Parts: sequence; C-alpha cells; structure tokens
Amino acid sequence: MSTPRIGIWIIGARGGVSVTTLVGLSALRNGLTPETGLVSCLAEFAHLPLTNWDQFVVGGHEIRSSTLQDEAQRLHHDSRVIEAVALEKSQDFLASAEANIRPGVLWNVGPTIRDLASPDVAVEKSARDAVDRVQADLRDFQQRERLDNVVVVNLASTEALVDSSLWPETWEAAEEQLGQPDCPLPASSLYAIGALELGMPYINFTPSLGATPKGIDELARKKNICHAGRDAKTGETLLKSVLAPMFASRNLEVMSWVGHNIFGNLDGKVLSDPDNKASKVKSKDQLLERILGYAPQSLVSIEHIASLGDWKTAWDHVHFRGFLQTPMTLQLTWQGCDSLLAAPLVLDLVRFVLVAQERGETGALGVLGSFFKSPLGTDRHGFAEQTEDLIAWARRSS
Amino acid sequence: MSTPRIGIWIIGARGGVSVTTLVGLSALRNGLTPETGLVSCLAEFAHLPLTNWDQFVVGGHEIRSSTLQDEAQRLHHDSRVIEAVALEKSQDFLASAEANIRPGVLWNVGPTIRDLASPDVAVEKSARDAVDRVQADLRDFQQRERLDNVVVVNLASTEALVDSSLWPETWEAAEEQLGQPDCPLPASSLYAIGALELGMPYINFTPSLGATPKGIDELARKKNICHAGRDAKTGETLLKSVLAPMFASRNLEVMSWVGHNIFGNLDGKVLSDPDNKASKVKSKDQLLERILGYAPQSLVSIEHIASLGDWKTAWDHVHFRGFLQTPMTLQLTWQGCDSLLAAPLVLDLVRFVLVAQERGETGALGVLGSFFKSPLGTDRHGFAEQTEDLIAWARRSS
Amino acid sequence: MSTPRIGIWIIGARGGVSVTTLVGLSALRNGLTPETGLVSCLAEFAHLPLTNWDQFVVGGHEIRSSTLQDEAQRLHHDSRVIEAVALEKSQDFLASAEANIRPGVLWNVGPTIRDLASPDVAVEKSARDAVDRVQADLRDFQQRERLDNVVVVNLASTEALVDSSLWPETWEAAEEQLGQPDCPLPASSLYAIGALELGMPYINFTPSLGATPKGIDELARKKNICHAGRDAKTGETLLKSVLAPMFASRNLEVMSWVGHNIFGNLDGKVLSDPDNKASKVKSKDQLLERILGYAPQSLVSIEHIASLGDWKTAWDHVHFRGFLQTPMTLQLTWQGCDSLLAAPLVLDLVRFVLVAQERGETGALGVLGSFFKSPLGTDRHGFAEQTEDLIAWARRSS
Amino acid sequence: MSTPRIGIWIIGARGGVSVTTLVGLSALRNGLTPETGLVSCLAEFAHLPLTNWDQFVVGGHEIRSSTLQDEAQRLHHDSRVIEAVALEKSQDFLASAEANIRPGVLWNVGPTIRDLASPDVAVEKSARDAVDRVQADLRDFQQRERLDNVVVVNLASTEALVDSSLWPETWEAAEEQLGQPDCPLPASSLYAIGALELGMPYINFTPSLGATPKGIDELARKKNICHAGRDAKTGETLLKSVLAPMFASRNLEVMSWVGHNIFGNLDGKVLSDPDNKASKVKSKDQLLERILGYAPQSLVSIEHIASLGDWKTAWDHVHFRGFLQTPMTLQLTWQGCDSLLAAPLVLDLVRFVLVAQERGETGALGVLGSFFKSPLGTDRHGFAEQTEDLIAWARRSS
Ligand SMILES: NC(=O)c1ccc[n+]([C@@H]2O[C@H](COP(=O)([O-])OP(=O)(O)OC[C@H]3O[C@@H](n4cnc5c(N)ncnc54)[C@H](O)[C@@H]3O)[C@@H](O)[C@H]2O)c1
Ligand SMILES: NC(=O)c1ccc[n+]([C@@H]2O[C@H](COP(=O)([O-])OP(=O)(O)OC[C@H]3O[C@@H](n4cnc5c(N)ncnc54)[C@H](O)[C@@H]3O)[C@@H](O)[C@H]2O)c1
Ligand SMILES: NC(=O)c1ccc[n+]([C@@H]2O[C@H](COP(=O)([O-])OP(=O)(O)OC[C@H]3O[C@@H](n4cnc5c(N)ncnc54)[C@H](O)[C@@H]3O)[C@@H](O)[C@H]2O)c1
Ligand SMILES: NC(=O)c1ccc[n+]([C@@H]2O[C@H](COP(=O)([O-])OP(=O)(O)OC[C@H]3O[C@@H](n4cnc5c(N)ncnc54)[C@H](O)[C@@H]3O)[C@@H](O)[C@H]2O)c1
Ligand code: NA
Ligand code: NA
Repeated sequence: MSTPRIGIWIIGARGGVSVTTLVGLSALRNGLTPETGLVSCLAEFAHLPLTNWDQFVVGGHEIRSSTLQDEAQRLHHDSRVIEAVALEKSQDFLASAEANIRPGVLWNVGPTIRDLASPDVAVEKSARDAVDRVQADLRDFQQRERLDNVVVVNLASTEALVDSSLWPETWEAAEEQLGQPDCPLPASSLYAIGALELGMPYINFTPSLGATPKGIDELARKKNICHAGRDAKTGETLLKSVLAPMFASRNLEVMSWVGHNIFGNLDGKVLSDPDNKASKVKSKDQLLERILGYAPQSLVSIEHIASLGDWKTAWDHVHFRGFLQTPMTLQLTWQGCDSLLAAPLVLDLVRFVLVAQERGETGALGVLGSFFKSPLGTDRHGFAEQTEDLIAWARRSS
Repeated sequence: MSTPRIGIWIIGARGGVSVTTLVGLSALRNGLTPETGLVSCLAEFAHLPLTNWDQFVVGGHEIRSSTLQDEAQRLHHDSRVIEAVALEKSQDFLASAEANIRPGVLWNVGPTIRDLASPDVAVEKSARDAVDRVQADLRDFQQRERLDNVVVVNLASTEALVDSSLWPETWEAAEEQLGQPDCPLPASSLYAIGALELGMPYINFTPSLGATPKGIDELARKKNICHAGRDAKTGETLLKSVLAPMFASRNLEVMSWVGHNIFGNLDGKVLSDPDNKASKVKSKDQLLERILGYAPQSLVSIEHIASLGDWKTAWDHVHFRGFLQTPMTLQLTWQGCDSLLAAPLVLDLVRFVLVAQERGETGALGVLGSFFKSPLGTDRHGFAEQTEDLIAWARRSS
Repeated sequence: MSTPRIGIWIIGARGGVSVTTLVGLSALRNGLTPETGLVSCLAEFAHLPLTNWDQFVVGGHEIRSSTLQDEAQRLHHDSRVIEAVALEKSQDFLASAEANIRPGVLWNVGPTIRDLASPDVAVEKSARDAVDRVQADLRDFQQRERLDNVVVVNLASTEALVDSSLWPETWEAAEEQLGQPDCPLPASSLYAIGALELGMPYINFTPSLGATPKGIDELARKKNICHAGRDAKTGETLLKSVLAPMFASRNLEVMSWVGHNIFGNLDGKVLSDPDNKASKVKSKDQLLERILGYAPQSLVSIEHIASLGDWKTAWDHVHFRGFLQTPMTLQLTWQGCDSLLAAPLVLDLVRFVLVAQERGETGALGVLGSFFKSPLGTDRHGFAEQTEDLIAWARRSS
Repeated sequence: MSTPRIGIWIIGARGGVSVTTLVGLSALRNGLTPETGLVSCLAEFAHLPLTNWDQFVVGGHEIRSSTLQDEAQRLHHDSRVIEAVALEKSQDFLASAEANIRPGVLWNVGPTIRDLASPDVAVEKSARDAVDRVQADLRDFQQRERLDNVVVVNLASTEALVDSSLWPETWEAAEEQLGQPDCPLPASSLYAIGALELGMPYINFTPSLGATPKGIDELARKKNICHAGRDAKTGETLLKSVLAPMFASRNLEVMSWVGHNIFGNLDGKVLSDPDNKASKVKSKDQLLERILGYAPQSLVSIEHIASLGDWKTAWDHVHFRGFLQTPMTLQLTWQGCDSLLAAPLVLDLVRFVLVAQERGETGALGVLGSFFKSPLGTDRHGFAEQTEDLIAWARRSS
C-alpha cells in the first residue's frame, strides 16, 4: 500500500501564517531546519502515527490577488525573518500550492475584510450557494491531487463578532439559516459547514465563528467528523494561561491585568476595525476569569503599529495582592514573530486532528485545548493542565 | 480533649521573614487580614485537618541582638509594608514570642554571618555540643509552653555552600562528623539534627545545607519524622518554574536565560558575600536544565541595592528560538516584597508538615516540592506538576 | 515693612494634586521634609527673591463635597504615600485652608465633571455671572486674609477639548462670548478671566483651555499680568521631551512611539471620558513632531485601572531606525506617584510666577516652558533647552 | 585642484565596528542607504566643509587572521543586520581595504587580547620599536595611496585598566617610558603616539588608555595636532547622559542606578575578562556623579550572552525619591545593535576631526564630548549640553 497523500486546504492561503506554514513545511521536507516550535515533534508524541512532511499537498481559498512568493518575500524583507536559503528553496513548493488556490467566499465578512478582496471574487446569492462553491473546490482538489484525506484550516482574517443569539443551536436551524437571504453565518462558518458535510475535518485557527455553534458541531457528529478551535494561542494569551494558574495556586489576588499588544502586519490592520478587534479581545480576555475563579479588572488592547511588521510586542502589567494585602507587580514584555509562532501549530493541529480522525473521534476536540485561546470541547484553560490532557490523550491513543 | 498547642520554633527569629510571619500570624488571629497568599487556605485543602492560627506558639533561635518589635517597625517604615493597625495590634504577640528567643548556634556559618552575631552568642567546642544546646532549648520550649508538637523552621541567613563531597551519606557518618573538631556540617544541619533527633519535623526555608545530606534524611526516617526543603520559591525562580515548562511544551528552544535580582534587606547583604551567594545562585539556576532537558546559557545575579529595602526587583531576559530558527524574546520584571511573599509559605509549610506527620510520613516530603527552589524528595521541577502533586496528596490524605 | 502675605487660590482645591501640595507645604513649613522635587530650591535659583513657605495662605474653589482631611487620608491609605507624621502635622494647616474653600463654577465643563459636583453648586445664567462670582470670592479671600498678592492655580479636572475655531482671538471677542447664553468658554477660561481682570496671575496646570486663547492673553497683557500653562509635565511626557531630542541629535529615525498610561485616581476616572481624554492625549502627543521635525506613528493611551490608585505606570515603546536602516527598540516603564510629582511643581510655578510678576513680565511666560506639556509663549519643546531658558531667565532677573 | 584623498586608518580593522563602518561607507558611496544615524549629516552641520564619502581610503592594523568579508558575513548571518544587497555591493570596497591591513601591535594588551592574536603577529623588543613599526605602516599607507591626510581611529578591543599613577604627565616622561623594557603604556597609547608624532589626528573610540595621559596630549599640542576620545557613547551610557540631567533639573534624588548589559559579540567576550571589563565599567559608571553632583549607589554589569550576537540589551533600573521622600522607579530596556550604533559615529568623528584639524585646533577636542562616555577636554557630561557645544562650535567654525 502506498503512503497516503494528505491535503491541507487553507482558508486565507496567502496570509502571513499560511505562507510561513508553507515555507516552513518546505524547509522541513528539505531538511533545512530543525523541528523547533513543533509540538508534535516532542518525545511525548513520538509513538503516534503522525503524517510525514512529504505526505502533505496544499491548496486553499483566498480573496486577495497576490502570490505566495510575494508574501514570503515581504515577510523576509520587512520583518527580517525566514532565512534567504529557506526562502529560495521553497519556490517550487509555493508554486505548486499556488496552482491550488481558488477565490474565497465573502459572505458576511464585514466591510474591512471585503475591502481587501480582489474585485473579481464572486459574491453568492445565498449562503448555501457559497457552501456549494466551497465544496466544489474541495472535491476538485481531492480528485486532482488524488488525496486520501483533506483537512481544512481556517487561517483567514478575523471576522467581526456575531451576536451569539443568532448562533444555530441545531443543525436543522443552521440549514434553515443557510437558505435565508440574510443568513447571519459568516464565511468562516460556511467554510466549516462545507468541509464537515464532505467529511473533512475543520480547524479554526482564528477567533471567527467557524464551527463554534452547537448546530455545526451537531453536523460534525452526524458525519463522524472532528473539528478543533478556536483562536490559536501563540503569545500574550499563552503567557496568561501559563501565569494565571500560578497566582491561583499561590492564593495571590490578581487585582488588575492589563495587556497592550502592538504589531504591524495585515492581521493587525484588520484588527484595527473595532468590530473585528472585538472578536479577538474577547478571546484574549475571558480566560482570566475561568482560571482565577473571579474577574480582575482587565484590559486588552491591540494596535496596528506599521513599523513592527510581523513582530508582535505585548506588554502585560499584572497588579496583585499578597499577604497582608501588599500590592506587588509583574510586568512582561513579549517580542515574538507572530507568523512564526503560529505556523508550526498549524502543522501540529493538522497532524493531531488526523490521528483523532483515524481513531474515530468526533465533534470538537477538547484535547487540543492547549492550542487555543477559546478552546472548544473543554473547560480547562490553564496551559499546563491542557498540555497534560494532550499527553494523556496521546498515551491513550497509542 | 483540649485543642492541641503547636510550637513553631524559628531559626533566625528576628529576621525579615520571621517577623513578617509573626505579624501576619497575629493579624490572622485577630481577623485583621484575609487569607491572601496562604496556599493552605485554598478550597483544595479545605478538608484537611489544618492547625488553626490560634493554636500556634512561637519561639526560636537568633544571633543578633535586636527585638521583634524593632524589626517589624523597620519593615513598616523602610519598605512601606504592613499596615499601621496590623503592626500595632501585633505588639503583645511579638512580646510573647520574644520571651521564647534563645541565642543561636554559629558553627561553621562563615565570616559574614558571624559578623552579624552579638558578641555574647556562645561558640561550642564541638558540633555535638551545639546540637545539645539546641535540644535543651527545644525541650525547654516544649515543656514551658506545654506543646503537643514542635515544628522547627530554618529562616536563618543563607550559609556558604558546603562542598558536597563532605555531606554524610549515612547517619553513622554524620554522627562521626559531629564529634570531629573540624566538623564540616554548618549550623543549619546541626539545627536539623537537633530537631529530628527529638522527633520534631524540620523545614528548611533557605538554601543552606540543613537536612539535605542522605545521612540526615536517614536519621529522620529512623525517627519516623518528616522534613521538607530547600530554599523557598517566592519570586524569580517561581516564575522560572512556571514559564520554563511552557517553552518545553511548545518545543521552543531556550538559548539563554538571564536573571538579575536586586534588593536591599539584610538577606541581600549576607548574599553579597560571594560564598553565601553561591548557595543561592546554584539553587536558583539549576532547575532550568531539569525542566528543559538541556542547559541553556544562564546567568543569575543577586545584588544588594540598599534603597530597595525588602522590595526585590528581578529582571529576566529569556532569549529563545522558534520555528525556522527565529530568535524571540521574553522579558519579565518582578517587583515583590520578599518577606511578604515568604511569610505565608512558612505558615503553609508548618500546617502541611503537621498533616504529613500525623499521617506517619517520614523523610523528605517531595509532595511539598512546589514550595522550594531545590525540592528534596522529588524530581519534579515544573510548578504546575508540583502543585498537582500537592493537591493529589491532599486528596489522598483526606 | 512686614513680610508680604501671598495667597494661592486653587481651582480644584480638594483634588489629589492640591491636597498633596497642601500637605507638602505644611511639611516644608514644619521642616519635616527636605526640598526634594522642588525645582525652585536648586542652587541655580538660590539668588532669586523667592517667597518663603510660611508666607503662603491657601484657599480655592471646589465642586465636590468632601474635606481636605479625607482626601489626604485617602492618598495615605490607598496609595501608600505621605508619611503618617507629615499627615498628622498638617491637620491645622488643612483646616485653615478648608475654611477658604468656596463652591466652584460648572460652566461648560461637560457631563463627566458635572457628575462629580455636589448638587448645591450653583450654575449661573451666563458666563459673565460666573466670572463675577469667581471675582467676588477672590476679592473676599484677599481682604479677609490681608494678602499682598494672590496667584490663581487651576488644578481642576481636565475639561473636554474645545473646538479651536471657537477660541476668541481678541479680548473684545472674548467679552462678547461671555455675554452669550451659549458661551463656548469652559470654566477654566472663566476662572482665568476672573483672575486676570483682577490683576492676579493665573497658572494652568491642566490641559483645559484656561488662558490659552489669544483673546485672554490679550487681557493679561492689557492688565500687565502674566500667566503660565498648559498641562504640567510630570511623567511620560517629561521623558518624551528628554529622550526625543536624543534621537534627533543622533539622527536616529523614530518610526513609532507608543505610550500606554494606566492609573487609578479621580483624575484617571475623569480622563476615562473620551472627550476629556482627548484634551490630555493631544497635549501628550504633539511634542514629538515639534522636537523631531517629522511625525512618527504615535499612540498614547490613558486608562483607569482602579487598583493603581495615584500610581501612574507608563510603558513606552520607541521603535527607531539606525544606520543602514537597522530597526532598534527602547522601552521605558515609569512608575511614579502622580500627585507627588505634580505638587512641588505647583509651588515652583507659584514662586517663579511671583518673581516674573515682580519684574513686570506680562502675558504667557514662555520661560516656564519646562514645566508644561503644551507650553504657552515658547516654541521650545526639548526639556534641556527649556531648562536652560529658565536658568538664563533666572540669571537675567537677578 | 583635485579633491583631497583622506585616509582612515583603523586599529582593529576586522572588528565588528570597523567592518560595519566599511560596509556602511560603501553603501553611502553607492547611494544604497540614507544618512540615518550620521550626526554630521544633520542640518546643523550642512555648512561645514565635510569630507565626502568617496574621498575616503581605508586601511588599518589587526591582530586576528580573518577577512573583512567573513566578518561582514558573520554580522549579516548571526545578528541579522546589514541587508543582503548592501553586503554584496560592498565586496570590492572591502577587498581594497583588506589590501591595506597590516599586523597590529600587542604591547601590554593583556592575556585575553593576546589570545585572540594570530601567532605570526610580531612582538617588539621595546615599545619604541612598536611605535616605529606603526609609523612605517602609516607612512607606507599615505604614500601608496597618495593621501592628503590620514586619521587614525582606535577600534581595537578594550585593554585592561592601566594604573593611573603610571600615566606619563609630560611628553618627556612618556618618551622615557617608551624606551623601558617594562613600558607600562599599552598598545592603544603606542598607536596614539605613532599617529601624533607623524602629525596625524587620533581618535580613541574605546575605553583603552590611548592619548588620555597628559604627556601624550602634550605631544599632540607640540605637533599642532588634535585628538579625541574616549569610549564612544552609543547605548546605555548615552541614555544615562540624557536622563540623569532630568533628575538633576527636577531636583529628584537618584538613590540607586543599576544597569545590566548583555550581548554576545567578540567585544563582549573580551569584556568578560574582569580586567578588561574594569575599563569599560569605570567609563560607564562615572558620569552619574559628574552630572548629579553626588554619587548614588550604582552598579554596572556587562555579561557575554552568546545567543545575542551583536545585539546589546541593557536593562536599567533607576530608583529615585520625589517630593515628601516618595520612592519611584524608572526602568529602561535598550535593544540596540552595537556595531550599527557605533559605525556612523566613527564616520562623524573622522569628519569633525578633519574640520578641527583644518581650523588648527590642537590637543583633546572637548567639543566632541557628546560622542564619548569619558570625554577628554571637557567637563560637560550631560548629552544636551554636549550637543549644544558641538553645534556652537560648528557655528563658530563656519
Ligand atoms: N500568531 C498568530 O499569527 C495568530 C494567532 C492566533 C490567531 N491568528 C489568526 O490567524 C489568522 C491569520 O493570521 P495572519 O497573520 O496570517 O493574517 P493575514 O491577514 O496575514 O492573513 C489572512 C488572509 O486571509 C485572507 N482572507 C480574509 N478573508 C478571507 C476569506 N473570507 N476567504 C479566504 N481568504 C480570506 C486575507 O486576504 C489574508 O490573505 C487571523 O485571523 C489571525 O487573527 C493568528
Ligand atoms: N522571599 C524570601 O524572603 C526568601 C525566599 C527564599 C529563601 N529565603 C531565605 O530565608 C532566609 C531568611 O530570609 P530573611 O529575608 O528573613 O533574612 P534576614 O537576613 O532578614 O533574616 C535572617 C536572620 O537569621 C539570623 N541568623 C543568621 N544565622 C543564624 C544562626 N546561625 N542561628 C540563628 N539565627 C541566625 C540573622 O541574624 C537574621 O536575623 C534567608 O536564608 C533567605 O535566603 C527567603
Ligand atoms: N502629575 C499630575 O498629577 C498631573 C500632571 C499634569 C496635569 N495634571 C492635571 O491636574 C489636574 C488635577 O489633577 P488631580 O490628580 O489633582 O485630579 P483630581 O481629580 O484629584 O482633582 C481635580 C479636582 O478638581 C475638582 N474640580 C473639577 N472641576 C472643577 C471646577 N470646575 N471647579 C472647581 N473644582 C473642580 C474636582 O472635584 C477634583 O477635586 C487634572 O486636570 C490633571 O489632568 C496632573
Ligand atoms: N557600540 C559599540 O560597539 C562600542 C561603543 C563604545 C566603544 N566600543 C569599543 O570599540 C571597540 C571595538 O568594538 P567591536 O565591537 O568592534 O569589537 P571587536 O572585538 O569586534 O573588534 C575589535 C578588533 O580589534 C582587534 N584588536 C584587538 N587588539 C588589537 C591590537 N592591539 N591591534 C590591532 N587590532 C586589535 C581584534 O582582533 C578585533 O578584530 C571595543 O573596544 C569596544 O569596547 C564599541
Ligand atoms: Na499573524
Ligand atoms: Na493626578
């Protein structure tokens, strides 16, 4: 039996995280880089039947006209990341992925994202039509590339918050919404539905709605498919989920937790729209209360500072009270390159989701909670306990 | 049956941590302060048979002539901690503890500590004589105060590093050393031996040798007594044990970890002596390798800056590599009041040790690893896993 | 001839800066504190005929019902500043000032400030009426206290920005506005007019409009009176005016300058209103362009974080480019107690203004530019050059 | 008349600062980079008769065997600085300079520097012989390259501190020392003497002794030659000289100033030797007292952290007291690329020294104080006042 060929279908294929994932995948295939940053390459997961780097074939949806090559070049030049050699050696791989990119869906994405779109991206009459187009593209990808399996990953720009009263509670309700002319589901959810109906796992790397509503999770379970989300945890929020448990375990009272994030890439520009930002801020902010058991005053800002490019700087100021009510302070400055923190997690998630799929797990994969700011399928928000869940799952599944 | 009376015997009774512990204990008895900072007061431990604040009676050894009152006043004035009311209301309690303070032991403490000592502190002819004097004081304390149990806690200044080739491997070897005129055991170990021989649990809050040698642990096991140590984890190292596991779990390579600590109290002055500092630095530095599985370049400095008083400021600079070898940075600034971070842990340790003692546990209590920089009796160095061990133990012991 | 008695009339008399000024003045009179923080006490100004601490008599306007005593107590307790002794010894002095406090003016102050006001603060029918009431109070103060001179200092909450097209260009235009039912001048300007018409110098410590309009400056010149403003420079902006010249002098290109300010006092609460905040942000933000000669991307946030009390923490992130276009970073964290940084400058300003008044200087005093974020009467924004101007002026005036 | 050709003779020609200077000079000649970072390109100096980039010819002394090309490549790769294009286009220029490099002098440089040296670097019998060899190389350079003028710049590794009691007070004393077999003058001073005797200006960019002794300054004056030094001010100390005057001008009392520097290049490795470090620390530390008028507790550390390469990170913690003795804190983190901060200053210094030389100025050029941590020929240490001196001098000299 030949080695299976696995498709990764990326929504937002020409974005920073996507392009970094592709250059990184190419570098891994070429043995140009060690496995630093890849969780799935830790000893704890060595026994799992993980997909190899050269089994992957990539395609995706995108709304901007640009090329993978240009975006990679931009990252290299503006943000001083990705070494020249890795960039050069990825040309062929990028070109082959480029050939698999199709125009994306713009349903209900809000004005800021729509403004990014190339004028020739079609807008369907109904959400259902958009889902159909997505599915046609996915089927075509699978057939043309003779793929044994396709995983759909949402790496598209963060959509505006959708009022949670509009989230469909059942798959029936969701189907009904799809037919309505003012269907409130945003593109991220249409992509999710498109994938899950076809029996393809869906990963939501963003704070957008995606497969979050119960009604879409129900679809996944009906189709015996798994999904994972929401909003990858790569920087400030990762630190929060690591540090907040310390305050809890030491019975130190967090009085306030302020976090200011500045960065300068396209993601940052989209997040400058207060509606889109709201999705992100909510995702970054809520876990404190979940971990601490009470809600300290908290503040999260995200601001687009062009000169920083892909480098996210986050300053956190934690004001807490110790014994005899003494106020003390912890400050953090995180200077990380966003796309390079995110890209390996994309590959990890695809690999772990494939293992879960193989094992017949369905619905939201709570065991992947350590990867997300707003994890679906679990109540655990502390990073250490989430990591333990993943390791325990890996042990079970071996 | 009347409520048991429990003695806490503090070595270094007039030091900053000790005095803060006493003022805090008094405030807790008087209901003047909430239980912030006390681990043993978390819900996870509510079912344990923990000693109440008013069951405790305090005494101890000290080498400096000063008063608890003066030291408390100094903390209040110089470091702007401990509210005026709590201070005032603690006067009687401090006075009663003062009456239980006896001159300490100076065997092998090194010149810097000896220089602190009042001239009338006796220096014994042999280590065995010193142990005898310690035991006489402990027995007297127990009898005079009609105590059901006494826990000895080492809060004395950090001694110089003792060459580990001189640590006794067996209790027999230790006993032999005690008789030698150049017995290499330092005061902290003599206090430990004194306590354990009398069947009293011993807690080593400092990086000094204490009950670390196997030969002293053997004594504890022989006597069916437990002990705990070493070097309480209250600031920078606590953060290291919280953050380093994150780098490991995300497969991020720590290239270097630099930590600079500045503070201005007496502890800081003693640690200005390079020999004494060596004990502390070793304790602060080693856990990185244990957690990460490799040793990044690391640097720990501790400097005495008088103006800071009891406020320890630590700056940590972590340089790590992510995907595609991209270097990134995390910086931390911790501004904590050392004595106030330490004091509640003293009370926690005493309470947990008493539970362990009650349950017949002997030797080094590895389950208390979360409290220490160089935990005895356990190989776990990550704070989250250590915390889990404590909670699991509490569950078992209920 | 007896020593002159000098009145300081404070608008916002029960605010944080005012109360700290009063407690500080009292401590200086009582010899309880050194002259740290007082610019006018530097050797460079020793030859000036500066008013002595015991020549001052204090009164003022206020809209909140509270007492100086209570506010001082709050500062002491919540923000852990002002030592107990200084507080206690200031009681009589605070009481005598308390007796000189009169209800303030609420004309055009905006809803957030109006909400602070006690219900019994009268609101006049016209701006002219408000000015009249202010003048009656000032005259009464001068007479009752037999004062040789009165300096009016605006320490009231920051008002909302007033559209600059409405600022009167001439005194004639200003007088006309005073009579209009919808006079656009805010309370700060009415207080300024009230003072200047009576021949009393006016100092605007806040970003509010005050004597900024040309028409009010014209009044000052007509009356041979001086005034000074606007918005005292005590923290982050002080640092900007110190550091930005370095980037200019080294030909380093500032690409972006981000400043986040968090603090928790009443001033901070008022500044949470976006309209009021706009005044402050504008004042904090503009000097970069003036100093650098170009406008880097800049961001200034001010957020109210209750737990911080009077302690302002500012984090600044400066992203600049050096030789061969290399991006570099400077970060600052400033942790200062706002009222204690401000109070000595109030005293300095009063003393320097009195010297200028004595020397017959009129209109906006540009030589006091080093004290202000938005200095009137000067084009110099670098702190070093402003300081030089002050020293040169002191030399001239001796 | 043809354009003059000017030689720059660099001691330490293959070091980081030197190579960056050469690549930068090449990029400026090729119009590949703007003049960011170059002080001499500011508008204030536009009227001066400054040497053009293409008038310069470079040569120098070096003790390590390596190539300019390799060192440039290393900077590019390890520290991610210097863009690929600038690097590539500098090849010819580097090659021509390479041809002008001669083996350096090792007299009295101490073991750490000697260990860097290639085995074939000759060691003279006497200091005088070493000077002779230096002069032969300088003459040869001038003749071969037909240079109108040669400026010698010391960019070599920092030598150990020389006991100041051994510094020659007169040129006569210096000459005598040169003949002694144990002449205490280090290589940097021999280079200085070599240059000055030939009538070539000398710039000491390092903390090494160079032309600091009065006896060597006397030689310069005798020869009607100028020199400048000592220890270029590029990072933490620059900030100190910018910020300390603010504390002085505001009468804020600096209680302690702690500075920790970490970086990973060759300079850092040499400075790991405590003797060599002592030179640097002294230079970085002393200006506080000069600016403030009193000496706060201060601490400066420099540590070699390999992973940082040429990126110097400095953390400064300033603890100061404001009004009513309130302690406050300013913290700074500076992340600058050392060589790129230094290189433009090398070019600036050469250009300004040539103007001074043209105008007949002799001895130590105090007007260049703004460039140095330990400026010779001036008592002014505040950066703003030093900058003013330079601008005033430029005005005078026009
Ligand atoms: N560390 C991280 O980078 C990180 C962490 C967590 C979450 N995320 C999220 O991941 C997403 C990607 O981040 P990024 O930095 O790559 O952003 P990006 O802006 O560089 O890329 C997003 C891409 O999605 C495309 N796009 C937008 N809407 C689309 C649609 N409806 N269909 C198809 N394509 C669409 C855009 O044109 C763009 O190319 C964002 O939502 C971001 O918030 C990133
Ligand atoms: N956060 C913390 O404060 C913290 C954390 C971990 C460990 N520690 C350790 O706890 C110890 C106490 O810290 P501190 O801040 O109270 O220090 P401290 O210097 O204020 O107190 C130590 C006291 O011990 C006394 N002493 C010294 N040698 C003695 C001896 N042989 N016998 C009896 N008394 C002796 C000293 O006179 C002094 O009063 C130190 O070793 C410190 O390193 C403290
Ligand atoms: N470092 C500093 O503290 C600093 C620096 C620059 C400027 N300022 C400005 O100084 C002012 C005072 O600061 P604060 O911290 O004392 O604020 P605060 O809020 O403590 O005090 C302001 C006082 O003004 C009173 N007030 C408001 N409107 C009034 C009116 N129309 N008439 C009379 N009283 C009125 C309020 O009731 C309050 O008591 C603010 O505008 C602030 O922005 C302060
Ligand atoms: N920002 C800065 O980089 C900065 C600022 C101030 C001062 N400095 C000083 O400038 C000097 C150069 O810094 P760098 O980073 O280029 O250091 P570097 O170590 O990269 O270069 C020094 C070079 O000098 C050579 N050298 C040593 N001794 C010599 C001798 N006797 N004769 C000839 N060559 C010799 C070494 O081989 C090396 O190539 C150092 O002294 C440093 O302290 C640098
Ligand atoms: Na991103
Ligand atoms: Na204020």
